[in-house]
Amino acid sequence: MLLFPVSQRAFMATPALAFRFIRRAAAFSSSASVKWEGGVSLVQGASRGIGLEFVKQLLERNDKGQVIATCRNPNGATGLLDLKNKFAERLDILQLDLTVESTIEASAKSIRERYGSLNLLINASGILSIPNVLQPETTLNKVEKSSLMLAYEVNAVGPILMIKHMWPLLKVGGGIGTERDVAVVVSLSARVGSIGDNRLGGWHAYRASKTALNQLTKTVSVEFARKKDPVICILLHPGTVDTDLSRPFQRNVPEGKLFTKEFSVQKLLNIINNAKSHDNGKFFAWDGQEIPW
Amino acid sequence: MLLFPVSQRAFMATPALAFRFIRRAAAFSSSASVKWEGGVSLVQGASRGIGLEFVKQLLERNDKGQVIATCRNPNGATGLLDLKNKFAERLDILQLDLTVESTIEASAKSIRERYGSLNLLINASGILSIPNVLQPETTLNKVEKSSLMLAYEVNAVGPILMIKHMWPLLKVGGGIGTERDVAVVVSLSARVGSIGDNRLGGWHAYRASKTALNQLTKTVSVEFARKKDPVICILLHPGTVDTDLSRPFQRNVPEGKLFTKEFSVQKLLNIINNAKSHDNGKFFAWDGQEIPW
Repeated sequence: MLLFPVSQRAFMATPALAFRFIRRAAAFSSSASVKWEGGVSLVQGASRGIGLEFVKQLLERNDKGQVIATCRNPNGATGLLDLKNKFAERLDILQLDLTVESTIEASAKSIRERYGSLNLLINASGILSIPNVLQPETTLNKVEKSSLMLAYEVNAVGPILMIKHMWPLLKVGGGIGTERDVAVVVSLSARVGSIGDNRLGGWHAYRASKTALNQLTKTVSVEFARKKDPVICILLHPGTVDTDLSRPFQRNVPEGKLFTKEFSVQKLLNIINNAKSHDNGKFFAWDGQEIPW
Repeated sequence: MLLFPVSQRAFMATPALAFRFIRRAAAFSSSASVKWEGGVSLVQGASRGIGLEFVKQLLERNDKGQVIATCRNPNGATGLLDLKNKFAERLDILQLDLTVESTIEASAKSIRERYGSLNLLINASGILSIPNVLQPETTLNKVEKSSLMLAYEVNAVGPILMIKHMWPLLKVGGGIGTERDVAVVVSLSARVGSIGDNRLGGWHAYRASKTALNQLTKTVSVEFARKKDPVICILLHPGTVDTDLSRPFQRNVPEGKLFTKEFSVQKLLNIINNAKSHDNGKFFAWDGQEIPW
């Protein structure tokens, strides 16, 4: 089941592309210090793919600061266990199933007792296809109620319940522990969730779930701003990244447009690092461009 | 349960407002003949409110043409039964529960056998609140998974399943039976489903479901266009209309902005009447203005 997709395999489409990645990575490394240093970061959907890469880079790019990684089955999360061996007490791994709200509440309780605050929440999980269960629709004739409901539950409802239960911790985290004056909530969305940018059709269940995630995140951002909470929400499109999620659909990706997860997460962390209050409720692509709703 | 909301009570905020309504109604009546005359129209969610008013005006404003009205409980649909007494064989009432796909399929089969085509499909149902079950959220703290899932099932999934099963009939209906060259699918959306226009926050479940409906309808419209099917889809915002759906929330409606269902449906039928191929996939308010996604 492709719930928290990821790839361990670095994909380089051409040598020229590989070179470009290296160049960009270097540019990133030479930028100002990361502003979440010293803080407490939570990555939900961290066992594989983009989520795991977020955990890795959050640990590697800071000398201090705590990372909490959640996934459905910690014992089977070999990528996280490898990082745990290396980073020891800087990494906590918690069991959390996005579709079971009590596990979200239990994680919030555990984080509150251990840290008392959160500076960064990244909702990284997402489903696009599950063999024999969920398949991106190529036509209206293939749209199934069960697929629509499942994609919505995991891609839209789960992330909002995460924000709901982590909200008190984020309010405490805004303005303390890091150089930031706000805590940051990141929901991983997708360009195909844009209605205005929808020119190809298809992928009904996935598209609608990401569009709804955009609306829910925007709705939450409005409340945070009105209450003057020191918390902002942003939506990020990671590009098409070489993970288990995208693998069945990579043949249509234009040359040079399939990113490694290392590259994508570097770009996304750059955006997160620079996010300010006026970015609250916005939807950015990996390159910092705003995406229309 | 407020599944297919409506009001029988005409609301007039001020005498001036009442006058304006009458004036507008007159202007509408003097416009060109309705172009769905002679066709077969289907209104889903027709027992009350805006749906019932659509059925009424579709029957009254044409001398010929067939209207099919669907609702969950035809025996209790007194408004429809009154129209049936008056319009006899021009009105068919079919049992259809939007959350039970087999009833949608059964309706499609019945319409295919009796008429063989459809010229107009109006998805009019919608839920916003159900006492003790679903309440529009005033804060993230009140967001519940069950509410999010229910609103999505009824407001987004149901209408798309309707389009899926009526699609073959709409393809036949495009270009025959009426003055139009296309069949028209209307999904009743709401301005609060706009992400770009979301300035107040709240109403998470309802907003997200309508936003998803917008994306799903847009997605379907892309496929219809690509296949050169003689079918277009439009999304319509009826304004805030005095029905059971809006009644608990009418105190915040600015003076003059609460419409009677007669007025709103006249305006919406005007848009439907004039909808052309280039309107496919667009989202219009009652006054014809496009609404941002």
